[in-house]
Amino acid sequence: MKLVTFQHQGRIALGKVIGELLVDINAQLPDLPDSMARLLAQGEPALQRIAALGVDSATLQLPQVQLLAPVTDAQKYLAIGMNYRAHAEEVARNGVPIPKSQLWFNKQVSCLNGPYADIHLPKVSDKLDYEAELAVVIGRRCRHVTVQQAPSVVAGYMVANDVSVRDWQMRSPTFTLGKSFDTHGPLGPWLVTADEVPDPHALGIRAWVNDELRQDSNTGDMIYNIWEQIAYLSTVMTLMPGDILATGTPAGVGVGFDPKRFLKVGDRVRIEVDGIGHIENTVVAES
Amino acid sequence: MKLVTFQHQGRIALGKVIGELLVDINAQLPDLPDSMARLLAQGEPALQRIAALGVDSATLQLPQVQLLAPVTDAQKYLAIGMNYRAHAEEVARNGVPIPKSQLWFNKQVSCLNGPYADIHLPKVSDKLDYEAELAVVIGRRCRHVTVQQAPSVVAGYMVANDVSVRDWQMRSPTFTLGKSFDTHGPLGPWLVTADEVPDPHALGIRAWVNDELRQDSNTGDMIYNIWEQIAYLSTVMTLMPGDILATGTPAGVGVGFDPKRFLKVGDRVRIEVDGIGHIENTVVAES
Repeated sequence: MKLVTFQHQGRIALGKVIGELLVDINAQLPDLPDSMARLLAQGEPALQRIAALGVDSATLQLPQVQLLAPVTDAQKYLAIGMNYRAHAEEVARNGVPIPKSQLWFNKQVSCLNGPYADIHLPKVSDKLDYEAELAVVIGRRCRHVTVQQAPSVVAGYMVANDVSVRDWQMRSPTFTLGKSFDTHGPLGPWLVTADEVPDPHALGIRAWVNDELRQDSNTGDMIYNIWEQIAYLSTVMTLMPGDILATGTPAGVGVGFDPKRFLKVGDRVRIEVDGIGHIENTVVAES
Repeated sequence: MKLVTFQHQGRIALGKVIGELLVDINAQLPDLPDSMARLLAQGEPALQRIAALGVDSATLQLPQVQLLAPVTDAQKYLAIGMNYRAHAEEVARNGVPIPKSQLWFNKQVSCLNGPYADIHLPKVSDKLDYEAELAVVIGRRCRHVTVQQAPSVVAGYMVANDVSVRDWQMRSPTFTLGKSFDTHGPLGPWLVTADEVPDPHALGIRAWVNDELRQDSNTGDMIYNIWEQIAYLSTVMTLMPGDILATGTPAGVGVGFDPKRFLKVGDRVRIEVDGIGHIENTVVAES
């Protein structure tokens, strides 16, 4: 299934996409929660009821609505740095040592943004950059998950742009402020449930700025795969339904070029992951 | 006012502490939310109604209930590192350079814990440490707050122990995993509203391990004060009601001793901030 959070006529609801049609989940099943993390917390029975909704229950067309981040109420948004080898090397040229273990940082959940929404060039920086990523959504509360168990805790996948403000990111070794400006967490266009992604480590992943292809790789090139990421994180903390993990970006980000190529007002950034979809966000000046 | 989140007979609710007595806010004012971030989002009118509840509406005694973290539903828990000069120097001796600007990292909100609850010695580490901190709770949604405006966005203050797993913290420059093990975010015992804390930069702050005083300082010794912290963070992101900021720890943490003195099973850690109160947590083995 392709699950979305959408806004239509001032109301925010969950939906299921069928081709160009949209089923309003909360109109059809009014007892279900109207945000994704709370829906996922209800587990398989709720998802099976949604799966049973057919095309005859689709009352909206996709272009009629505004898609928001599929998960608007995530408790956590964690992201792994330097997890594709060629990207780790381009970042190392900018002074960050290649990590000896998984390097996790936070994007504050206040930065979540829709798949086609504007992203802000902050007033305080001109070092705005993009990062194409496959994002994982956790499906159930879990701790101490083994690599073998990890696939069973995944609800599904999304496309992410881990928008980064490089000077603020590098000013502190903890990264988080440069990764968390408002609007810098575009996600979407939908959450594709895990049953429709037979192998998340074999997906083409690409980023374009305007019409120029900048990143072109495959999720199979991750250094630490998704199952290893979940096992490592859950050694430390309880993962919750709706938690978002961004799994790393391949080579080709703006800061990796010589000279560096940062985003400017008017640039369109399109991120695409095979089998998931694409998001496209335009850079605007922070007002 | 002293506001708490408490559990009693299986029910979780908000309360107001008057001496040893407890007013059950949600029983008295059933239309108010039953979690702190959502309560604070209602702003001054809700707080004024709570202020009007007198001792005659107190139906419980404090020892009857279990206090939880005053804010259980924070969207964000950010903490500043190396913000007291003598502590920055003891950490620098362990290889972390003294930062040139505010160094912020995350504690995952899944680590929130009560003021008197157990803290876990993880199976994967024996490098468990304490950090006494004054925690700030944001009272209203805000962005681009100036230093002058910052006091007006603070709801109140709590005592925090920024429990840290030093090997996991230092393995990655981003800190967050070593700061976020489940149970490692004790807070409390209550949220003291800002009107009762005339100067948050003149409070004695102390930590004891068992009966030994380890940290003994004053919040006036912060390098970046609370208003500067709020201004800096809100340059980047929207702060939300209930967001928690831990404002740094003074010298005297276990990793600063030679030889280092980490916490062991059975140790009791008491953190005290003048005018706020104290929390006390016992180390137990992770089961």
